[in-house]
Amino acid sequence: MATPVTPPRGMRDFLPADKASREHALAVIRHSFTAHGFDEIETPVMEDSARLHSGLGGDNEKLAFAVMKRGLKPTDVAAAAESGDLLALADLGLRFDLTVPLARFYATHRSELPTVFRSIQIAPVWRAERPQKGRYRQFVQCDIDIIGEAGMLAEIELITATSAALDALGLTGCSIRINDRRILAALLAHWNVPADLSERALITIDKLDKIGVDGVVAELGSLGLVTAGIAETLTALGDAGWDAAEPVAPAWLDQDAYGDLLALRAAMPGVRLDFDPTLVRGMGYYTGTIFEISHPTLGYSLGGGGRYDGMIGRFLGTDVPACGFSIGFERIVDLLGADAASVETSVVLVYDKGTDPARLVALKQTLVAEGLRVRLEQRTKNVKALLERAAAGGYGRYAFVAAATEDVAALDFRPLAG
Amino acid sequence: MATPVTPPRGMRDFLPADKASREHALAVIRHSFTAHGFDEIETPVMEDSARLHSGLGGDNEKLAFAVMKRGLKPTDVAAAAESGDLLALADLGLRFDLTVPLARFYATHRSELPTVFRSIQIAPVWRAERPQKGRYRQFVQCDIDIIGEAGMLAEIELITATSAALDALGLTGCSIRINDRRILAALLAHWNVPADLSERALITIDKLDKIGVDGVVAELGSLGLVTAGIAETLTALGDAGWDAAEPVAPAWLDQDAYGDLLALRAAMPGVRLDFDPTLVRGMGYYTGTIFEISHPTLGYSLGGGGRYDGMIGRFLGTDVPACGFSIGFERIVDLLGADAASVETSVVLVYDKGTDPARLVALKQTLVAEGLRVRLEQRTKNVKALLERAAAGGYGRYAFVAAATEDVAALDFRPLAG
Repeated sequence: MATPVTPPRGMRDFLPADKASREHALAVIRHSFTAHGFDEIETPVMEDSARLHSGLGGDNEKLAFAVMKRGLKPTDVAAAAESGDLLALADLGLRFDLTVPLARFYATHRSELPTVFRSIQIAPVWRAERPQKGRYRQFVQCDIDIIGEAGMLAEIELITATSAALDALGLTGCSIRINDRRILAALLAHWNVPADLSERALITIDKLDKIGVDGVVAELGSLGLVTAGIAETLTALGDAGWDAAEPVAPAWLDQDAYGDLLALRAAMPGVRLDFDPTLVRGMGYYTGTIFEISHPTLGYSLGGGGRYDGMIGRFLGTDVPACGFSIGFERIVDLLGADAASVETSVVLVYDKGTDPARLVALKQTLVAEGLRVRLEQRTKNVKALLERAAAGGYGRYAFVAAATEDVAALDFRPLAG
Repeated sequence: MATPVTPPRGMRDFLPADKASREHALAVIRHSFTAHGFDEIETPVMEDSARLHSGLGGDNEKLAFAVMKRGLKPTDVAAAAESGDLLALADLGLRFDLTVPLARFYATHRSELPTVFRSIQIAPVWRAERPQKGRYRQFVQCDIDIIGEAGMLAEIELITATSAALDALGLTGCSIRINDRRILAALLAHWNVPADLSERALITIDKLDKIGVDGVVAELGSLGLVTAGIAETLTALGDAGWDAAEPVAPAWLDQDAYGDLLALRAAMPGVRLDFDPTLVRGMGYYTGTIFEISHPTLGYSLGGGGRYDGMIGRFLGTDVPACGFSIGFERIVDLLGADAASVETSVVLVYDKGTDPARLVALKQTLVAEGLRVRLEQRTKNVKALLERAAAGGYGRYAFVAAATEDVAALDFRPLAG
């Protein structure tokens, strides 16, 4: 009896063409990051449940998949039901980001790592989100982080390495929007926002792109804030480009932070950096610079990051400066075409049923040794369909193996229609 | 307060040097398999719990990590405690091998795949085994499978691709031990082993390497079998090499199966194939050829596989021929040295505190553009230790950035002691 079969809800299978695109993009990203002096590490996909739920992950903690303890007895389960503490049934969970595992990894291995540690993590994470278009329950994150560097060299190396990866992927036209949490703090102070409303005010400012100046003013007003002057500041900020702001930066602007941003821009003439004083970024752990990848044709960011000096040290008990940049891999891979590089060197040998396998494999081995990717296909009634499928699979040429073909020199290769 | 931190029990972090070795080996294996016409696919790490526990995974099913249902209520948990069916609390589980997911994937996507589908799966699996030396709860498997090819071309392509991957990794001296389940069946028939004792007899024969002929005879005797002649057969089989058996194959040998093995050997002159009539392989789903990678210096196999015609079709309701080969990645990566290829092109720039970051990054970018891997390191009091760490990190040369260094031509690169 045939059973219907699908991957679990919100998770995806990758067929050969998609998997090849993904692996190609991952290899390009990995190579760019490595060339820029970053070192790849790996942690297990599971972490102790207590660590995943230690408050560093914000709202994502609620989305963690919980892994049941092994060897549970009905009495253990009954006790959990009684107490209502169902998480007591799980000792492990699947990571929901790569930052909590990095903090744990750094705490475990600090003595074996360089003083300034530049890490690469390219790996899947899991979130039990309500499945919807473009949101998956398993997806890949590509993070680079620099731990132990308090100066702006960290930001510079992260942004240049990320920019190089985007270039290497062929994603032209990207820019980096940049801001600093200190500038946002100064803005809130300028508007007399009390500390207990800061987070909610930032969430509102973050919506400026979507709800506009009037929407932001209305929402801030509904928080009970005095909104006089807010519309003017926002409009002025929106009008003032980076260069316009430079000579006449508003008095409320945090001048140290703004000076750092100007220095960052000067240090990276090859990268398009756009100052965006209303850029917020969601996570509460950011303490300084924050940045996002923008693309002119897209309404969403392709990645982001920032400085989070307080967090990595949390498992260590000491403060350690840290800054990170994460590429939104799933969004980026959707923008890329198939990898065309290997088509020219990929060939299909079509053989007739009954051909001696030893002869086929000898031909194949010779071509593989010449650097080709070689697929054997038994001739079917509908050869046209067979060849079309081979072309779709990224093969560029084909040849028929005739009864007399003893040598690859006798193969008559023809192009496959692409 | 500092908290002690380790990865979960039986799971590993990979520091940069180990991660680099692993990624290098994976890239080599991926490239070899792809060149041989196999296509990589990917499935989610989780599968539906019911599917993982459908009987295809043998003893490994008991080792699956179970993922708790989201949104459970205390009443659900109390009900599970009452009924004793604790697996009802889990709807998903982490895969314990790549074969069950492949069968599910094939059932889901059969209409989108070629008639003969050659798959690559390179991915982690999880088993809640008692942690011990060399056994991990998360480890990588590298599987290739051919689905839809009933003829021996499948075995030939699998074995030649695997052999090429081992060669490309620099693992010389490997051989492939090969047998056929039909030959084992004939051997059991020759010994008059009743069907209900077949599995246990095979498990015993599998121990021949460890317990010797006498041990096997004793254990078979304890099963209640008549053991007259068994020692003689085993000794004859052990003495008879492949070539010796060829002219005078014992009468009980399955001649079809043996003929196939001879044809396989003839078709792969470049691969060392050793006939081993007592090779068993653990999984019950094998139906024909079975094979294992041996290395003269190792007492354990480096991978294995075989034909399992009945299994892939289980989720489809139709029979589909299938054959697979799995490389024991964790064992192989332990045998490989560090990847030396990139040392020559990896350089460290040592700079003094206070050096303009813009200048540093300009130097770095120029060198990266020339194809180098570049690490910036701030000079420490103990420069010797810094340089030793850089050498250990796979960097081959270093230069000091002097106050006047404006151009990479002014950098004086020196070799790092390896």
